[in-house]
Amino acid sequence: MATLKDIAQRVGVSVTTVSRVLNGKGSISWETKDKVFEAIEELDYHPNEMARSLVNRNSHLIGLIVPYIDHAFFSTLTAAVEDACYNAGYKLLLCASGGQGDREREQLTTLRSNNVAGVLVCSRQESAPLETVDMPKVSIERTIEGVPSVSCDNYQGGVLAAQELLASGCKAPLLLGNRIISMYLPAYLRYQGFLETCQKAGVACGEYYIDAEDLFGKDLENDLQRAKERFPETDGIFATSDILAARIQSASQDLFPEWGVPLIGFDGVDVSEYCNISTVAQPVCEMGQLAVKLLIDRINGEEVPESSILPVSFIRRGSSGYME
Amino acid sequence: MATLKDIAQRVGVSVTTVSRVLNGKGSISWETKDKVFEAIEELDYHPNEMARSLVNRNSHLIGLIVPYIDHAFFSTLTAAVEDACYNAGYKLLLCASGGQGDREREQLTTLRSNNVAGVLVCSRQESAPLETVDMPKVSIERTIEGVPSVSCDNYQGGVLAAQELLASGCKAPLLLGNRIISMYLPAYLRYQGFLETCQKAGVACGEYYIDAEDLFGKDLENDLQRAKERFPETDGIFATSDILAARIQSASQDLFPEWGVPLIGFDGVDVSEYCNISTVAQPVCEMGQLAVKLLIDRINGEEVPESSILPVSFIRRGSSGYME
Repeated sequence: MATLKDIAQRVGVSVTTVSRVLNGKGSISWETKDKVFEAIEELDYHPNEMARSLVNRNSHLIGLIVPYIDHAFFSTLTAAVEDACYNAGYKLLLCASGGQGDREREQLTTLRSNNVAGVLVCSRQESAPLETVDMPKVSIERTIEGVPSVSCDNYQGGVLAAQELLASGCKAPLLLGNRIISMYLPAYLRYQGFLETCQKAGVACGEYYIDAEDLFGKDLENDLQRAKERFPETDGIFATSDILAARIQSASQDLFPEWGVPLIGFDGVDVSEYCNISTVAQPVCEMGQLAVKLLIDRINGEEVPESSILPVSFIRRGSSGYME
Repeated sequence: MATLKDIAQRVGVSVTTVSRVLNGKGSISWETKDKVFEAIEELDYHPNEMARSLVNRNSHLIGLIVPYIDHAFFSTLTAAVEDACYNAGYKLLLCASGGQGDREREQLTTLRSNNVAGVLVCSRQESAPLETVDMPKVSIERTIEGVPSVSCDNYQGGVLAAQELLASGCKAPLLLGNRIISMYLPAYLRYQGFLETCQKAGVACGEYYIDAEDLFGKDLENDLQRAKERFPETDGIFATSDILAARIQSASQDLFPEWGVPLIGFDGVDVSEYCNISTVAQPVCEMGQLAVKLLIDRINGEEVPESSILPVSFIRRGSSGYME
């Protein structure tokens, strides 16, 4: 088997130089690097330390797939996941699927071929590609049979939002959210909790759904126009994310200054604070930390609970108009 | 040298099973996997395909270090970088330094030992650790001698902000931003552009600096209180980031309802839109794309410009109070 010395002789440099190239240390010209790598291939040299990492059972790489990195909920979650990885001695390979199933599938393959020890996925796909991947995995805000999942208590969140609007005296509340494409998205439960609480109180509730994948509410002005035509009597809105709530508040100021109804968001991310919007707060940091902990437990071959549901809390601000 | 067959015999399974373990395919028990990996280590087996990737000159991994992932500017930038990496066939290893030099240094070492092909760094350190790292690198919003950098035209941004406040009739504008710790942070130029433009117009300008690392303005209420005591005549504010501007707007509503002065932010991230704040927009997506392109050029051994400065634009919204 070839040694460092064989390589050095072949290239005509010192063993130290070859070692430096392999370890990426010191200043070596590209020409020399190329020659060293060519010799390594020709002589079929297997550097020991590198080879050792190959058969290492744990690469200490964790893959995370989120739909969008620049959406406030997912950027907060990604920050929490990265921090938890760092504290546990893991590195984070980050992928954004853009909510596209094909891309998600491709990214799972790429992550596996990069030898990740496990993956965390926030999938919005009807049929989650994650299901078919045979490696340690944890799902966030998505239920997949046989895959441990972490989510917040969405149902209770919907209940809290409804209770706040009802306590504010709303007689015609409106649920405005992204169309739920899959019953396996726990966010479905926040709709249910809201609708059932209104129903129990004998209050008829409007429902308006925007494009399932338009998480940023890019076409919201048109949607608001239509929602208002359909539910002109609306006197309170539950927007199913803070981003949507912020957009509704901003668009309403220009388009419908008369529509200054109580407004409640969901997520509890910074933007709700900046915009002074009441919201149902998910424990996003805890969710990210727990997801990483569960994944590392799985990587270490331990059993973990199939479903972890963390509590939500209500943050009252200026937008909900309810005075105690 | 050991072969697949040797391993299979040692463990007492088929060659196919060993191959599946190595390639991570099929459903193999953890017990068998463990045995196969033990045999691999004992027999000092070097799987060819894996070994080949070792001497591969390009891992197609790019490291990105940002101070905070959940800060709107950096999450928008990270999203753009991830997308550009994906389109170029690269994977992104993401690190958040929390603005701490030690952590940044450690992360650079980790990234190198994970064989990244190159790194992108948004450093806020006085003495940037990046300087000492010998691998392809590009700096974003930070000037380091000998390292290609990408930034926006910060000086012109400061000029635009000043011009807007002056055109709104401000006689006592206030610059409110994070204390600049290093002249190598191009953001310094946005302060300069603002102050010099006010000076040229013969308008005296207040300056209030908050903690250099408090990019989220966590203690802003106290800072605002002090700024108001020091500059009571303030009739217009240039906040040097959208996050700060949003926090100022939100805090002012509660604390100083009488302080409804024109307000201008910087960055052009979503939050400025939600909060209806006029802002100097950085071309964040283009900056991320360009940084990835330059880094890949460097990885391929090509020359790239030392400094790339992209144009800014002004977005007028309700907060600047200027009517044409």
